[in-house]
Amino acid sequence: MSNMKYIYGVDIGGTTVKIGLFTEEGTLIYDFEIKTRTENNGENILSDIAEAIFFKMWKEDADKNDIIGVGLTAPGPVLKDGTINGAVNLGWGTFNLSERFSEITGFKTVSGNDANVAALGEMWKGGGMGYSDIMMVTFGTGVGGGLILNGKIHTGAHGAAAEIGHIPFAEPEDEPETCGCGKRGCLEQYASANGAVRVAKRYLNEHPDEECGLRNIPEFTSKDIFDLVKAGDVTACKIAEEVYRIIGRAMAMISAVTDVEAFVFGGGMAKAGQILIDGAKKYYLKYAFPASRNTDFCLATLGNKAGIYGAAKLVIDSNNSDK
Amino acid sequence: MSNMKYIYGVDIGGTTVKIGLFTEEGTLIYDFEIKTRTENNGENILSDIAEAIFFKMWKEDADKNDIIGVGLTAPGPVLKDGTINGAVNLGWGTFNLSERFSEITGFKTVSGNDANVAALGEMWKGGGMGYSDIMMVTFGTGVGGGLILNGKIHTGAHGAAAEIGHIPFAEPEDEPETCGCGKRGCLEQYASANGAVRVAKRYLNEHPDEECGLRNIPEFTSKDIFDLVKAGDVTACKIAEEVYRIIGRAMAMISAVTDVEAFVFGGGMAKAGQILIDGAKKYYLKYAFPASRNTDFCLATLGNKAGIYGAAKLVIDSNNSDK
Repeated sequence: MSNMKYIYGVDIGGTTVKIGLFTEEGTLIYDFEIKTRTENNGENILSDIAEAIFFKMWKEDADKNDIIGVGLTAPGPVLKDGTINGAVNLGWGTFNLSERFSEITGFKTVSGNDANVAALGEMWKGGGMGYSDIMMVTFGTGVGGGLILNGKIHTGAHGAAAEIGHIPFAEPEDEPETCGCGKRGCLEQYASANGAVRVAKRYLNEHPDEECGLRNIPEFTSKDIFDLVKAGDVTACKIAEEVYRIIGRAMAMISAVTDVEAFVFGGGMAKAGQILIDGAKKYYLKYAFPASRNTDFCLATLGNKAGIYGAAKLVIDSNNSDK
Repeated sequence: MSNMKYIYGVDIGGTTVKIGLFTEEGTLIYDFEIKTRTENNGENILSDIAEAIFFKMWKEDADKNDIIGVGLTAPGPVLKDGTINGAVNLGWGTFNLSERFSEITGFKTVSGNDANVAALGEMWKGGGMGYSDIMMVTFGTGVGGGLILNGKIHTGAHGAAAEIGHIPFAEPEDEPETCGCGKRGCLEQYASANGAVRVAKRYLNEHPDEECGLRNIPEFTSKDIFDLVKAGDVTACKIAEEVYRIIGRAMAMISAVTDVEAFVFGGGMAKAGQILIDGAKKYYLKYAFPASRNTDFCLATLGNKAGIYGAAKLVIDSNNSDK
């Protein structure tokens, strides 16, 4: 590895751990995955990662001194000092993730929440390149958020900044179902991939006379909705309009608080692509404060590698601030 | 003035300009006001301020070298570089406020938007002391906001961060009246001092059978509402509950995005005091994401001097980052 310096970016998910080796400039040299062993409260996860990294380095005859550090992301709230306040999907309680991994490996370690770190990755090398203030919005099972201000993750006082899936979007009294957080009316009950399906099912129930391709798909997904939109299904288009409206209005709420330069859309539902961006922006313009009308809407480009990119960037930023 | 160093904090309003002299530690030595001359597009405002400061210094035999700089706040969007993008109340267009005042006086000058700078003042020496991440909420004719993150003003990409009065709170279709920004359904149509009066008038119209002291006050204000609440007027209490609910839900929206440590309530309607704090917090707990339940709610304490305090702090922060 000579004089070049490298960083490992590690994204710990509930099923797999993604590990990538990066140059200081952000070039991904290689990446691979290992299984996440969540049994026994996930006690093996960090040592498995350490072992995988050291085995890889041994095979490549790499020098430990060429590694600047390791960035970790995990699915839970992570405070600025590296403390993770539990990660249900991994079986973890509260402990200092950065310190623990550093003790195991001897590497300088920096940690962050997965959604926040993915946002950092997208700003660095993905759909948010060129911006320093972005809100990344991940439309998956829920709606995840990652807020980057002045090029840095904004964590929040309780590690709960950018929990935009839980914006109290509708009145609890108007919503019969309970969100995963225990409340009702959260944004992600309408604007996530699952939320879009719920919006669609309600629309179809309330409009029994309208024909729609979705009626022929027993367990349809948000992908089915947008596929039908692209195929010109009139009712699917009406349903999508409602989803765009909800997303556009939510982005206008976020803009009135943060006035970011850009929204970066990722996650499964964002595979709908430009129609989602255009639809959301149309309604955004209806709801947004006039001074924030020029906010950009972009698609994420790093897919499931955003986490490892962002994790590497965490280390680089931390290293720069140490100098 | 010997070895002590001083800062002028200047708050330019549509009617008066407040000027205060501060020590570096933030002690207010004296403050005074001059009239804001808005005629001829406010062309005399900055020279009037310069003249007032120099006359005061001449009377006190003060040394220009003991002044670290001048902080200015104005009622308009101010970008990071000191450019003000118009200030309707002053007759101003777009120009670099900091540079212009520095050219006139020779003093290092730093500028900011009045609501943001007031928030900085409250964080420094007022209701937000001890916090570094706050949202100040000013309940006046509208709802103003000032967002402080990591101890610094968050300005936003278009100078429109913390324009929380324009959160799209209600659907435009549900709101017959238009907000000053041209939209309908903005938060300030319900949660400001004027908004509370509108909420009250609608409630009284929709409940013609309910007795209420407000019916005897021809042009009642938000103060009348809260005075009647304190006097035990049952209907006024119901109206106030609705206002608390709106504010609490809006704060939960803001928390889901920023997860600030504290909300600091100021402005005319905040003179209602602890009942407003307690009422808003009660509903906040209903709507907020569980991780952000411990967010503090405080009252602003600097009144109309928050602007000059914050303006002085702008200079101190800028001076520290220069070193």
